[in-house]
Amino acid sequence: MKFKLALCQMKGSVKKSECQKSAVAAIREAAAAGAQVVSLPEIWNCPYSNSYFRDYAEDGNGESVLMMSESARENKIWLIGGSIPEISDGNIYNTSYIFSPEGKLVGKHRKIHLFDVNIPGGIQFFESNTLSAGSEKTVFDTEFGKIGVAICFDVRFPDLFSSMTNDGARLIVLPAAFNMTTGPAHWDIIMRARALDNQIYFAACAPARDLASSYHSYGHSCIINPWGEFCAKADSRECIIYSEIDYDYLEEIRTQIPTHIQRNTNRF
Amino acid sequence: MKFKLALCQMKGSVKKSECQKSAVAAIREAAAAGAQVVSLPEIWNCPYSNSYFRDYAEDGNGESVLMMSESARENKIWLIGGSIPEISDGNIYNTSYIFSPEGKLVGKHRKIHLFDVNIPGGIQFFESNTLSAGSEKTVFDTEFGKIGVAICFDVRFPDLFSSMTNDGARLIVLPAAFNMTTGPAHWDIIMRARALDNQIYFAACAPARDLASSYHSYGHSCIINPWGEFCAKADSRECIIYSEIDYDYLEEIRTQIPTHIQRNTNRF
Repeated sequence: MKFKLALCQMKGSVKKSECQKSAVAAIREAAAAGAQVVSLPEIWNCPYSNSYFRDYAEDGNGESVLMMSESARENKIWLIGGSIPEISDGNIYNTSYIFSPEGKLVGKHRKIHLFDVNIPGGIQFFESNTLSAGSEKTVFDTEFGKIGVAICFDVRFPDLFSSMTNDGARLIVLPAAFNMTTGPAHWDIIMRARALDNQIYFAACAPARDLASSYHSYGHSCIINPWGEFCAKADSRECIIYSEIDYDYLEEIRTQIPTHIQRNTNRF
Repeated sequence: MKFKLALCQMKGSVKKSECQKSAVAAIREAAAAGAQVVSLPEIWNCPYSNSYFRDYAEDGNGESVLMMSESARENKIWLIGGSIPEISDGNIYNTSYIFSPEGKLVGKHRKIHLFDVNIPGGIQFFESNTLSAGSEKTVFDTEFGKIGVAICFDVRFPDLFSSMTNDGARLIVLPAAFNMTTGPAHWDIIMRARALDNQIYFAACAPARDLASSYHSYGHSCIINPWGEFCAKADSRECIIYSEIDYDYLEEIRTQIPTHIQRNTNRF
C-alpha cells in the first residue's frame, strides 16, 4: 500500500490571520500536488515564545481549529494540524489537532514532554513556565493504516515511539521546531534513529527559519524510511516536501531484519 | 571523574594462536599508552562464520580466557574481552568475558539477540544455526563507576541500553562486527543514537576489515560522547583508538537537557 505525504514547512508571523492564510494556501498546494496526508509545523499560528502562548491560545471551537477542519474537508486530505496553543480549563497545552478528509476531528495530541532546557551559550527555554503537559499517546486510524503523532521534545523519549509502533503505527509524524543549538547537533540522528529502530516511516515537520522572529527554527523538515534513509529533506526555507510512503517496502525491511520478532521479551 | 578508554580494532586470523598474540600485543600497547579500560572486538579469536564457532569454542578455563585474565593482570587494566565462542553444556554462545586489573573475572555477557538476517543482494547470516542466545544484561562495577556490555546485534534493541543506563551504567561498550551492508547504512546512526538517547558514553569495538576472510567487517570502531558526537573513530584498518571518558561532561549535559528526570513515567 502506498500513499503520498506532504510536510508544509511554513514561515510564521506575529499576525495569526497571516499564519492562517499561509496554512490554507500550503494545504491547498499540497493537496493539488497529490498529497493524501498533510502536516503543518509545531506552533504554526503563534510566535514560539512563552510571552505569546496564552494570548494566542484557542479552545476546540477556535478559528484556527475550524480553519483546519474546513481545509481538510475542502481538500479531502488527512490533516495533522502541526500544533497550536490550546486553552482548556485555564491550562495551556501545545496541541496537535488531527482531521479526517471529512473535516472530522479524529485525534488530539497534547505535547507530553515539555521543552525545558538550559544550555549556556546556546538555547534556554522553559515551556513549563506557561504550558501544561499532556499525558496520552496519540495513534489514529486511516484507510492507510494507523498513524502516530507526537510533538518535538517528545522525540527524546524513545519508549513513546516503540509503544506507538507496537500499537500498529507504521508512520509517525512529529511537528517539531528544533533550534540552532540542538538542531545541527541532534535533529538528523534522532529522527533517523526513530525510523530505523522501529522500522517505520518517520516525518518531522518544522517551521521555516525566520531570523526576524525571536525563535530561530532549525527547519530541515524530513521524511525518513524504515531503513533510516532520508526520502525527502528541506533546508531552512519555506517549502513543502513530499514523499511516497510505501508499506510494501516497510514489510520487506522487516522481513530482512526481523527485529520485531527477535526482541528478547524479558523486561530488562 | 575521568579515565582513558582504548578500543583495539584487531585483524583476525584462522590461526587462534595468531589472534591471541595480536590481542596480547594490542592490550599491552593500549595500556602503555595510558588506557585504564581496554576492549577487544567481537569474535576476535575465530573467523566469524558458523562453520568455525564450535571448533574454536572454549569453556571458562580455555586458553583465550586465561590469556585475557593474564593480560588484564599484567597490564593492570579493566579488560572487556570482545567476544569469543564459548561452549557450555554443549551449547555455543557468543560471549564477552570481562576482567578486573587483578585478572579476576567480573562479568560475562552472552549475546542476547542473535544475528539472523537475510538481505537479498546484501548480507545473509544465521547465528542461530550454531549459537544459543544469552538472556541476561551485563553491568559491572569499577572504580570509575558502572560499565555496561552488550554485543553487536543487541544494539538494535534500545530497551536493553536504557535499562543498563537506569542501572547506573554511564559507559556502554559494544564489541560488534557489522558487515558491508548494514555497516555503511546503520553503524553511525545506531551507535550515536544509543549515546544521545541515554546521555552516556558509548563505544563500539569492531574487528579490522580483512578482505581475505569470508566475513568482511565494516570496522569503524568508535567512541561517542553523551552529546552524540564522535570522540574517536577508526577507518577499516587495524588500529587502536582512544578517548578520555569524562563524567563531569556527562553530568553537564544531563543538567542542560535533563531527560532523565523529564520522562513521563506512565508506561506507554
